[in-house]
Amino acid sequence: MGTFNVELKKVVDDSYDIEIGFGLEDTLIEDLKNGLVGNISKYAIITDSIVKDLYAKPILDKLEEAGYKADLFVFEAGEKQKTRETKAMVEDAMLEKGYRRDCCIIAVGGGVVTDLAGFVAGTFGRGVPFINYATTLLAAADASVGGKTAVDTPLATNLIGLFNQPKKVYLDIATWKTLTNRQIYSGLAETIKHACIASKDLFKFLEDNMEDILSIDKKACEHIANENCKIKYQVVMKDERESGLREILNLGHTVGRAIETVSDYKLLHGEALSIGLVAEVRLATDLGYMTKDEADKVVALLEKAKLPITIPEYIEKEELVKKLYTDKKVKNGRLRFVIQKGIGDVVEFEEGVFATPIEEEVARQIIMSI
Amino acid sequence: MGTFNVELKKVVDDSYDIEIGFGLEDTLIEDLKNGLVGNISKYAIITDSIVKDLYAKPILDKLEEAGYKADLFVFEAGEKQKTRETKAMVEDAMLEKGYRRDCCIIAVGGGVVTDLAGFVAGTFGRGVPFINYATTLLAAADASVGGKTAVDTPLATNLIGLFNQPKKVYLDIATWKTLTNRQIYSGLAETIKHACIASKDLFKFLEDNMEDILSIDKKACEHIANENCKIKYQVVMKDERESGLREILNLGHTVGRAIETVSDYKLLHGEALSIGLVAEVRLATDLGYMTKDEADKVVALLEKAKLPITIPEYIEKEELVKKLYTDKKVKNGRLRFVIQKGIGDVVEFEEGVFATPIEEEVARQIIMSI
Repeated sequence: MGTFNVELKKVVDDSYDIEIGFGLEDTLIEDLKNGLVGNISKYAIITDSIVKDLYAKPILDKLEEAGYKADLFVFEAGEKQKTRETKAMVEDAMLEKGYRRDCCIIAVGGGVVTDLAGFVAGTFGRGVPFINYATTLLAAADASVGGKTAVDTPLATNLIGLFNQPKKVYLDIATWKTLTNRQIYSGLAETIKHACIASKDLFKFLEDNMEDILSIDKKACEHIANENCKIKYQVVMKDERESGLREILNLGHTVGRAIETVSDYKLLHGEALSIGLVAEVRLATDLGYMTKDEADKVVALLEKAKLPITIPEYIEKEELVKKLYTDKKVKNGRLRFVIQKGIGDVVEFEEGVFATPIEEEVARQIIMSI
Repeated sequence: MGTFNVELKKVVDDSYDIEIGFGLEDTLIEDLKNGLVGNISKYAIITDSIVKDLYAKPILDKLEEAGYKADLFVFEAGEKQKTRETKAMVEDAMLEKGYRRDCCIIAVGGGVVTDLAGFVAGTFGRGVPFINYATTLLAAADASVGGKTAVDTPLATNLIGLFNQPKKVYLDIATWKTLTNRQIYSGLAETIKHACIASKDLFKFLEDNMEDILSIDKKACEHIANENCKIKYQVVMKDERESGLREILNLGHTVGRAIETVSDYKLLHGEALSIGLVAEVRLATDLGYMTKDEADKVVALLEKAKLPITIPEYIEKEELVKKLYTDKKVKNGRLRFVIQKGIGDVVEFEEGVFATPIEEEVARQIIMSI
């Protein structure tokens, strides 16, 4: 009989840079030449069928020009593809092409691509470095800070995944010009959420500059990209493992995620989130944490960003209520919500506790009313 | 244009205890009551079809008696089940039963179970704590230290996985009594490998006490369990991410893993490793790092442990040579081997470099000769 102590204490440095700019392909290649990921010479570019020709192929060409071995690994675009099966397909294709542990993954695309590729990188050969080249507004707001990677399963979204930090993130605003209007609107939902939880100033900026933003004005877009990083970073740095504070980033997501799933991904993430935000300002108003006027301002801003603010008719609302229980904030079988406090703040219920139990009946009534 | 720095530097403490003893079920329950994993009240026991009734069910009963919620998640026994599909099946079953991020996973079984369960734990809800209750000699030698978790894919073994440290490991030697003889012999291969790379004394102990060990004598078995932990720990602590030194644990595995795959898992891991060790002592002798006498001693010890020392006739040797290239030590398309130096040591080729490129033809000739 005896006990053997395995002592594994160490300092981990996962710091990285986010570069924000217009057309960053050459910057990426320069960074690699300058040793961003050491002397790795094999690059697996993971992308989707839409981004492939627009941005991934040009990066592939530049990598090959620079003398690196590189290959494209492409999956069908869409949130529906963010699955374990797609992950396995990419892994097998990489293994087939001889990729082993001495490679680096470059994710080129939106949030679905960066989420999936970051997860692949985390488990391929028990972890290879990865870089995010983000080509959507949503990825800039949501996927650039925090290290959250995941896939969806039939029973829940984003519940199988990893915390995995990239070596660098590129937010190429020039790429937003090829987004559809719907994607731009959808991308703004996370930005509006950030303003709601942490910045009255950003909220005001969005109210005042929505037209510039929607037409991808360089200066306005760089500003919101920067603000998104700043807000998310402040939250994430204080709570990397999502034990308390980080839950505030979940504002609007309890209902939003559920709608996204029940709509069978007919709604984009940001569209579903927008409806989720409406639900949560209604809840916050009922609970006395927001005035009706403040709640209306949030709804008006969502409308200004051309986002939906009511639950589409094809959604079966009772099914939606049931789906709420797949939320990762559920504890001991009870629904928990993050609650906005005025504009630019959230409620801290106890020290470090930013989500509160809400009775199913209360949630149901909110859902029935929007 | 601008750069945003995400600063993520932190101290991580992944230390844990390995408890070695006879019948440790009650110790486990006591540890949980004493807060081993905090105040978690839901336990997912992952096990296989063989271990289920022997050890997992009794632990389930004790957990329920202690007032915890617990469920068994069982998959078919065997290395062939260590797949992404089994992982997904377990995940879905856990989600179905309402498991979320507020649970702890207890792996009860051998190396296949602890490898798979540790991987599930690493990605379920982006990481939940896990505990290993190891019920085989192989798991005691191989899976208790190092934090390596993984699944196999059609193209390669152990290439999709994670480094993930358990909260505690229990090596219950009483459970070895229900192993088949073949499993005991197989389990000894990793122990012999440990002796080969790091300990003349352990090698001698194995030569002198093989009969006691094979009959699961308590004292002899506790000794080898302890020595296995000690050797593996010394290596792993110095190189947690397997960049250099840790490769020495791969002695015998270049050929071993390939044989295991080509045999379609008809050979147990330790049996395949045994043949791999024979290949590598032959290679070491050819390269002048071992005398023929030392090599013969290793082969004799493997025989004493009733392990195979020749490649079974049903293995197609050319296929085996090809399969060598799926080894994770392959760099720039070249095979790399760890080379034993006498008994109890390995060759360090350059500072921190413990694997050396070997021409395919050299590897082929060794394989043809055994």
